[in-house]
Amino acid sequence: MFMDDMGWGDLGWNGEPSRETPNIDRLAAEGLTIPHIYNAAPICSPSRAALLTGRLPIRNGFYSNNTHGMNAYTPQEIMGGISDDEILLPELLASRNYTSGLIGKWHLGHQPQFLPLKHGFHSWFGSPNCHFGPYAGINRPNIPVYRDDHMVGRYFQEFPIDKAAGLSNMTQLYIEEAVNFIHREASKGPFFLLWAPDSIHAPTYSSHLFRGTSRRGSFGDAVRETDAGVAAIVEALKAEGVENNTLVVFSSDNGAALVSKQEGGSNGPFLCGKQTTFEGGMRAPGIFWWPSVITPGSVSYQVWTHMDLFSTVAQLAGADLPRDRTLDGLPLANSLLHPSLQILRPVFLYRGDRLMAVRQGSYKMHLWTFSTPTAELETGINYCPGQEVHNVTTPTPTNHTAQPILFNVEVDPGEKYPLSPSSSEYKKQVAQLTAIILSSRYTDFSESELQQVVEEHLASLTPGEPVLNWCDSAVMNWAPPGCEALNDCLTPPKSNPYLCVWPH
Amino acid sequence: MFMDDMGWGDLGWNGEPSRETPNIDRLAAEGLTIPHIYNAAPICSPSRAALLTGRLPIRNGFYSNNTHGMNAYTPQEIMGGISDDEILLPELLASRNYTSGLIGKWHLGHQPQFLPLKHGFHSWFGSPNCHFGPYAGINRPNIPVYRDDHMVGRYFQEFPIDKAAGLSNMTQLYIEEAVNFIHREASKGPFFLLWAPDSIHAPTYSSHLFRGTSRRGSFGDAVRETDAGVAAIVEALKAEGVENNTLVVFSSDNGAALVSKQEGGSNGPFLCGKQTTFEGGMRAPGIFWWPSVITPGSVSYQVWTHMDLFSTVAQLAGADLPRDRTLDGLPLANSLLHPSLQILRPVFLYRGDRLMAVRQGSYKMHLWTFSTPTAELETGINYCPGQEVHNVTTPTPTNHTAQPILFNVEVDPGEKYPLSPSSSEYKKQVAQLTAIILSSRYTDFSESELQQVVEEHLASLTPGEPVLNWCDSAVMNWAPPGCEALNDCLTPPKSNPYLCVWPH
Repeated sequence: MFMDDMGWGDLGWNGEPSRETPNIDRLAAEGLTIPHIYNAAPICSPSRAALLTGRLPIRNGFYSNNTHGMNAYTPQEIMGGISDDEILLPELLASRNYTSGLIGKWHLGHQPQFLPLKHGFHSWFGSPNCHFGPYAGINRPNIPVYRDDHMVGRYFQEFPIDKAAGLSNMTQLYIEEAVNFIHREASKGPFFLLWAPDSIHAPTYSSHLFRGTSRRGSFGDAVRETDAGVAAIVEALKAEGVENNTLVVFSSDNGAALVSKQEGGSNGPFLCGKQTTFEGGMRAPGIFWWPSVITPGSVSYQVWTHMDLFSTVAQLAGADLPRDRTLDGLPLANSLLHPSLQILRPVFLYRGDRLMAVRQGSYKMHLWTFSTPTAELETGINYCPGQEVHNVTTPTPTNHTAQPILFNVEVDPGEKYPLSPSSSEYKKQVAQLTAIILSSRYTDFSESELQQVVEEHLASLTPGEPVLNWCDSAVMNWAPPGCEALNDCLTPPKSNPYLCVWPH
Repeated sequence: MFMDDMGWGDLGWNGEPSRETPNIDRLAAEGLTIPHIYNAAPICSPSRAALLTGRLPIRNGFYSNNTHGMNAYTPQEIMGGISDDEILLPELLASRNYTSGLIGKWHLGHQPQFLPLKHGFHSWFGSPNCHFGPYAGINRPNIPVYRDDHMVGRYFQEFPIDKAAGLSNMTQLYIEEAVNFIHREASKGPFFLLWAPDSIHAPTYSSHLFRGTSRRGSFGDAVRETDAGVAAIVEALKAEGVENNTLVVFSSDNGAALVSKQEGGSNGPFLCGKQTTFEGGMRAPGIFWWPSVITPGSVSYQVWTHMDLFSTVAQLAGADLPRDRTLDGLPLANSLLHPSLQILRPVFLYRGDRLMAVRQGSYKMHLWTFSTPTAELETGINYCPGQEVHNVTTPTPTNHTAQPILFNVEVDPGEKYPLSPSSSEYKKQVAQLTAIILSSRYTDFSESELQQVVEEHLASLTPGEPVLNWCDSAVMNWAPPGCEALNDCLTPPKSNPYLCVWPH
């Protein structure tokens, strides 16, 4: 269950004051919670690509180097998408006879060669892009909704969204599809379902059943409907009698989009939100539920990344991990079964193609800081509204590699109090974290200045070919497969590729 | 159970990421949580005086008008304390044959006439002031620890605190005393216990049992020890078989003291902390536990103040509320029994003697704003570290009565997004909240400008005689009753009363 722009603080379980997620909270109470799980990127496409490949976006190509250190994703103009060279989780699970379904948002590229059924999923109901619009179909087509490999309609057309009222039935469809998938597949054999509703992403929507029911407004309505979906899916597992044989994982692709202000979610006590590598952008909700296996109400302080889910799920399914490539995740099944076990391991936090920070143990070392670009601040955009930490929430990419900023994020989860560079704690931890970068499996070089180390790390990393550099209006969803049956094939403009602009 | 400087966000239940309060969280899971309960003042003495009198500090005298709108409390120099004219909760409960005990911090005045046994408590173990020190006993005596009406030692002497190591056995003593109190009283008849440990107040301390056990450092150690105390008290109630006949309430006197930086607590998603009337200073943890009566896991969105506890506990005990004075609390027993019931009522938020804000329903209207005074900011003191909301976190008392600042604190718990004064929502709510001030039972006057209304409200309120105006080194704890037996009576200096200085 992979939420869209849901923040850590949006769960009642994590202190959302209105406590409107009773079903997710129950999942947490009956399962294992991991307060320290990181998404692989503070924005949707790279985060999702990393979840499904077990590899950092810098490796799997979900970044751009048009502008160094900026977030890129997959708008309709994007030419690229997930590479055939990448092995996705459903492809790996197929070796163990899993049937895989995606219900909801894809976001790994919308040209035909990039779609889910070309990359291991056996079924799909959902859309390749965000539910932006409506568009007139002249400069830009409306986003299609797919069933498997063909379009069955478009947002704002066959799948209406009333933006003014914040109304749409999509989440109800996604719930129904998930329940049907489970009833269809559970008796046949092992299955993998990625449930990825997108109603919490701005502009938020919910169905008539939930519209106006939240104390938090439109955003809360969408959260409540998603919470009801979690209950329906768990019920379906129980109805099929497979709940003791099914691992349910709940998380979100990135932190709450604070740019949406009171229409967006909450990152609880953390700093900033989506687009940033502060805790508010990178720390995700983390719940594992598996009744017969996981001790109810357990907590693990293991530091996780979403990429560990790739390796851990493969491990649990008995699938061999690919040996011909670097994986950034670890197989952590033991950590689920024995929550007190903890492995000390680093997690690398990137914004676009730039290594911004490293987390290990209780510490987080910022090599670079960057909040909202000055130009965007001036237009009212703010990824850190109401928050300002001197020398930390910097409005330009600021290089701290000569003297990194170090936080103990267990003592100071809000990243407000940098440790003093003259303290022995700072010296010890920065030395250790520097050594980690030095000795990481991606790198192979001797001691040097940290700034140089980082540059060499990046240089020696053999990044994947970036797939988010090029845009072209001609590649938009003008005429997806299946458009003929709907009489909804639009004519693309003449191809005119250009370097995409990624301003933050 | 009344915590000291514990913030809303310090409970695992409220999203503290390290989740180190399993016993308090269990109390919440088995009981009723109220996410919207306010302390009566953002600082200890006035908050505690209001809890025990059911009346705002402006009425019960726990304020100063030396400097308008500044927080005052009861340091050792304070001459005043709780007035004999006030009726405290234990005095009220005595009419129903309750035996009342205070274990922990008092803070309602330390001169003999102000002590707990003069104001309704039958027993006391604890101290009248904060555990500051150590003092040499020349300019200032160490704080005494009392058993009932006489000193049995002093902090840093008979009751050691190792400040450098953050070590003290006091919380263990407070736990033991509470358990003994329950075992002693439960079989005799009805009892009221106010358990008020102070180890979470800076400088924090814990015993060897807990020192170094928290992921959050010294502050977390103190929280963990308190959490263990909650478990011990609940166990004692169960051992006596009175748990179905006992209402347990858990809260805190004011928001976390963010001025202590990473050594202090967390107010979760709320703005600012102790000393301020923003949500971080005023929103308290709120748990009611009463196994046979309260539905486990229930939530009530009723807006409460601590002063309601006075009226509600009296109501539940069958004690008549005093009719000769204004009470600021409401009897809300129905709200405990039927969590979906909600009464629309205003809560007035004061800083010192100044009405700063009003909360009603989902809305909070700031008439005045004030964060950290500029002079203190310049010395590194900050009640809102890392937070800055334009025109809201003002470093001087700023008058907004001509155009109040309005938040929907259910949609925007962090008080980041003032509603636009031109919006219909703003106009409607400000008119309603203004009418509340106009029509409040404290006032009796016709329509006028809001600024004038507020001034008239304050003028017509008949404030209590302020008890926190005068200070005198001679009134410090030089020779508390019982000092003779300990050979620890110090000689006070010559009396020299002066107006206390309250800088924030």
